Amino acid sequence: MPHIELEAHLPGITGLLEYRKDTGEPIRVLTQIILRGPSTLTEAERELLATVVSHGNECRFCTTAHAATVDLLLGESETSERVKADIATAPVSEKMKALLTIAALTGKSGRLVTPEVIAKAKAEGATDLEIHDTVLIAALFSLYNRYVDGMATAMPEDNSYFNVLADRLVNHGYSRLPQGYDHLKKQNAKP
Amino acid sequence: MPHIELEAHLPGITGLLEYRKDTGEPIRVLTQIILRGPSTLTEAERELLATVVSHGNECRFCTTAHAATVDLLLGESETSERVKADIATAPVSEKMKALLTIAALTGKSGRLVTPEVIAKAKAEGATDLEIHDTVLIAALFSLYNRYVDGMATAMPEDNSYFNVLADRLVNHGYSRLPQGYDHLKKQNAKP
Repeated sequence: MPHIELEAHLPGITGLLEYRKDTGEPIRVLTQIILRGPSTLTEAERELLATVVSHGNECRFCTTAHAATVDLLLGESETSERVKADIATAPVSEKMKALLTIAALTGKSGRLVTPEVIAKAKAEGATDLEIHDTVLIAALFSLYNRYVDGMATAMPEDNSYFNVLADRLVNHGYSRLPQGYDHLKKQNAKP
Repeated sequence: MPHIELEAHLPGITGLLEYRKDTGEPIRVLTQIILRGPSTLTEAERELLATVVSHGNECRFCTTAHAATVDLLLGESETSERVKADIATAPVSEKMKALLTIAALTGKSGRLVTPEVIAKAKAEGATDLEIHDTVLIAALFSLYNRYVDGMATAMPEDNSYFNVLADRLVNHGYSRLPQGYDHLKKQNAKP
């Protein structure tokens, strides 16, 4: 049972973003920019980073939601399953293995991200911006994981909920950018 | 040395918020709303929550910055020092001890926030909104701590930097809300 009264039909993060819409809005906007904005990482790759961090933080709601989103984007569930089980042997590029490792470490503590794991990612072709975005995605999902579990939010009654949620996140994203954010759309288009 | 090239005169989080301004903006906006918006918790109390989380996550830049901000707001440094050393014996209210405990636990993992620590906070008079905001502040600073240390950002060369930063955070806050956020100002004014 959640630690405070939240709308019962809104499990996980969804009830929290409704409970305080003013704080929910910049969280949605940040997520939209970093997971759906222009990037040299695909949406599936960025959702995989979110999944591996949530899995490491043992946040069931977030892990299930973002793994379902990866699966819908890729049309298969083997990749997300194997990344959760073992990054080193998962069917992703060497660059993605390095970035997933950085994300997993960041989710535990930023202090665990060593020059060696960064050098490995750069050797595999990761750009500074990709490394930055990987750390920021991991930091953002460390926020989500703590928000969702720190408030003891509910899991949905039916697991098919996550298919509906993944469909929404793939086809409609996390947020329409609010009016005043038009300048960010432009900024976001040219990193 | 930071893991990517950042402007050398901008230590800690400041270089990251400049490196990618489009993601920096919603982070600033969220921080402004939750730490400076209308609340039944004082600004010093909210900055103390940020301090205790950053201290638990061993983020030197964030801990020093927010402790300096608490000290400037309170006009003394004993409170922040003693909260960092031991919440139970610190010179704050029983309600704040309960909220600081929730924040410290959330910073480690949301799964550590038990019904018992929530019940203690409610017994000491904490409202649902105060509990929500405590968990969100702890989650947000878990983001900051991981972002700052995951990118290996620099500490300032001179510790007096933090007095200047604290003065800015006390007198100018974290962000002017951007144009499109006018509706949030209103929303924020009436929780």
